[in-house]
Amino acid sequence: MPKQVDHAARREELAAALWRLVMRDGIEAASLRKVAAEAGWSTGSLRHYFTTQSDLLAFAMELVEQRVRERVAALEPGDDLRAAAERVLQEVLPLDDERRAEMQVWLAFTMRAVVDPGLRDLRDRAHAELRELCRQVAAALGAADAEREGERLHAFVDGLALHAVLDPATTTPARQVELVRAQLDALGAAS
Amino acid sequence: MPKQVDHAARREELAAALWRLVMRDGIEAASLRKVAAEAGWSTGSLRHYFTTQSDLLAFAMELVEQRVRERVAALEPGDDLRAAAERVLQEVLPLDDERRAEMQVWLAFTMRAVVDPGLRDLRDRAHAELRELCRQVAAALGAADAEREGERLHAFVDGLALHAVLDPATTTPARQVELVRAQLDALGAAS
Repeated sequence: MPKQVDHAARREELAAALWRLVMRDGIEAASLRKVAAEAGWSTGSLRHYFTTQSDLLAFAMELVEQRVRERVAALEPGDDLRAAAERVLQEVLPLDDERRAEMQVWLAFTMRAVVDPGLRDLRDRAHAELRELCRQVAAALGAADAEREGERLHAFVDGLALHAVLDPATTTPARQVELVRAQLDALGAAS
Repeated sequence: MPKQVDHAARREELAAALWRLVMRDGIEAASLRKVAAEAGWSTGSLRHYFTTQSDLLAFAMELVEQRVRERVAALEPGDDLRAAAERVLQEVLPLDDERRAEMQVWLAFTMRAVVDPGLRDLRDRAHAELRELCRQVAAALGAADAEREGERLHAFVDGLALHAVLDPATTTPARQVELVRAQLDALGAAS
């Protein structure tokens, strides 16, 4: 038992250090050496958790998944389904520094997975998880074909998040919120 | 004059060799050495056109832009604006091997630009060009707020193209066409 607890605590400590680094310098700058330094660990200790840049990205991606999952689970559904749908989607869009950093991790991880087959299972799981969330939103808003409307919403949300990173001057947080509203209005109309 | 003509012809020759390589092995495998070999050139001759992996990606991206621009310009508008809009969007989606390769170049280039500021002007231009195309489609279909509806369509199209690359089993060419139709139906409804 003590060893288990220790492992979970160590993992959280490491995740916190990695996240501080990502927030400060971006995921591109995160290396095994820098994460070890930030955590105050030896690189030897770090190797129990990851040994390559791909492992580090996978660790960061799992952290992002966990963060989003916890925020979505913590939302109070309330009586207004439409308002709840907006809040859910806002949790996966880069509307502030924390979520922008999450999006950058997702992007770096997704690109790495193109050339690193070892990352694909995790990538596919994260992709399927967001698709399912979008399907649930479409179903909750009464879409006749929730599967199709969920996929359409998913494409829109991922494209919007990408644009917010590529062109933050045009795709501002306020504009993202506005476009999500328009997409949800149109979802109701198309269903 | 002869020198100018020669340069343009050489550039096209190089572009053709690069494209054969991208179609056969993917953009990830394209290196200066391999492009030179495919073109039957010395790496010295190649260096008049590009010297780094970033230059090569920029060259490939310009080629993709040119290909898409030519296809869109060659479309017969016809009387049916809605059908024309679908055809325009289909030219930028990965519906066949050629367009899938274009999408992969776009993705690799876009990611490289995150860490290579020298590529940002070209990336911003390509991004603005597709946004403008989407704005024109939204305006042609009578959207009241063509700016906003164009941005929404642009986010959807880029997200859909990304999903087609990440998850081709779900986001098949037939599904892409279906989702584009639904998005355009909904655009009419929201305007």
